[in-house]
Amino acid sequence: MSEHSDRFFWPVRIYYEDTDSGGVVYYANYLKYMERARTEWLRSLGFEQDELIAKEGILFAVRSVQLDYHLPAQFNDHLHVGVEIVESGHVSVTFDQRIYRDDERRPLLCTGQVRIACLDAVTFRPKRFPEALLPNA
Amino acid sequence: MSEHSDRFFWPVRIYYEDTDSGGVVYYANYLKYMERARTEWLRSLGFEQDELIAKEGILFAVRSVQLDYHLPAQFNDHLHVGVEIVESGHVSVTFDQRIYRDDERRPLLCTGQVRIACLDAVTFRPKRFPEALLPNA
Amino acid sequence: MSEHSDRFFWPVRIYYEDTDSGGVVYYANYLKYMERARTEWLRSLGFEQDELIAKEGILFAVRSVQLDYHLPAQFNDHLHVGVEIVESGHVSVTFDQRIYRDDERRPLLCTGQVRIACLDAVTFRPKRFPEALLPNA
Amino acid sequence: MSEHSDRFFWPVRIYYEDTDSGGVVYYANYLKYMERARTEWLRSLGFEQDELIAKEGILFAVRSVQLDYHLPAQFNDHLHVGVEIVESGHVSVTFDQRIYRDDERRPLLCTGQVRIACLDAVTFRPKRFPEALLPNA
Repeated sequence: MSEHSDRFFWPVRIYYEDTDSGGVVYYANYLKYMERARTEWLRSLGFEQDELIAKEGILFAVRSVQLDYHLPAQFNDHLHVGVEIVESGHVSVTFDQRIYRDDERRPLLCTGQVRIACLDAVTFRPKRFPEALLPNA
Repeated sequence: MSEHSDRFFWPVRIYYEDTDSGGVVYYANYLKYMERARTEWLRSLGFEQDELIAKEGILFAVRSVQLDYHLPAQFNDHLHVGVEIVESGHVSVTFDQRIYRDDERRPLLCTGQVRIACLDAVTFRPKRFPEALLPNA
Repeated sequence: MSEHSDRFFWPVRIYYEDTDSGGVVYYANYLKYMERARTEWLRSLGFEQDELIAKEGILFAVRSVQLDYHLPAQFNDHLHVGVEIVESGHVSVTFDQRIYRDDERRPLLCTGQVRIACLDAVTFRPKRFPEALLPNA
Repeated sequence: MSEHSDRFFWPVRIYYEDTDSGGVVYYANYLKYMERARTEWLRSLGFEQDELIAKEGILFAVRSVQLDYHLPAQFNDHLHVGVEIVESGHVSVTFDQRIYRDDERRPLLCTGQVRIACLDAVTFRPKRFPEALLPNA
């Protein structure tokens, strides 16, 4: 079994909009790439977030993030953004997300731990995650 | 009467978030600065947009923009963003917006013509602007 | 010959990062999607902008934009962003860009005219566009 | 001695550009507000980052961030973004940053721990922080 067996990857191309005058990707933007990858991972499982709100009455909210920056991405880079659930409770899950540049193994640019809560779309109170989203459900 | 007599100005400081790897402000961001200045001009007249939606049932939507880029802004620049209504109808107004760097006269970095519609906040149909917002009301 | 014969299209997916609290895509962001499409059109012709700077000593700068907003895009929409040169001189070209939602014909959300200058990457003075980029070269 | 004795605060107004279709501030944007506050804190001490690069040959790079989201900010909110150094070594410092809404004490919206490295602007190797930036220097 490879280390990557459970990991979903989503490609992200870097445009000028992503960079800053330091010549590299602006560090807050990695949070956007991680979210794009989580959104596409959800879609790959058959979940659309606008339908989850409208039909299931649930939405997801980011509770905390921990980001470590290892190497900067630059204009025109083609990134591989990984998604994997590393911890799951009834009302929140934690994703381990890794961003690589050349392929899905190296070099490692940025790692993130993102904790997401599942909320009732009307009351904003914690609600159980749909079972199908959780590992080994 | 000076050319600037009717013009409201709002200061904008440039941070790394505003720049791109070309070393200057990313050109789409000037639209944000123009909107900050329109928002503060409204506030200076006593209008808060969240209250306009909640109490008056109206909101503003950008219908078109024309931007001309003359000189680029850079990290740490302190800009002066001007707001002036140049044309007003019942359901839309056009702003002339000029962005200067060192003071409110020069150098001129960017000019914009921004047409805004007033909409009913529920039906999204055109609605009359509040009289107090229009010149010579 | 169809109207679309010369038009290059690039897909853009809308994420939360793209929207604002009005519930639709923030209007300045359409400039980003138009640039992504121009960048990918250049790439499809064999041009990478970082190589153009490093090897040819040229870069592109946006001189003016005219945007008209017809219908708003929303979260999860999958857009089709068109690129076509409508006017070309020695040192600047104008792109006509149209953004559609469901397919490459309708509905039309936003149209843009974007004028780009070709500059010497060192002196920032106007420079001739590479011939291969121009129509009927 | 008050808890706030060493803390610098910078005000941030929320505009549409800051929000997302969930109706609140997009969570990646808090990193921008924290950086604006660090930049203004540096400026209050007499340091301009463009001059630090040009004259001292040093720049600052974000190495890691830990963010916890407590309550969301909304359109038109006026935030107070705090800056305080909580740990400092020779080549990196950690900031504790707290974002409040109504005043500089409550409600608490977001907390961040941001670790910044000082780098040589040419070689990008670690370099000592200017003494004047460190507490009890």
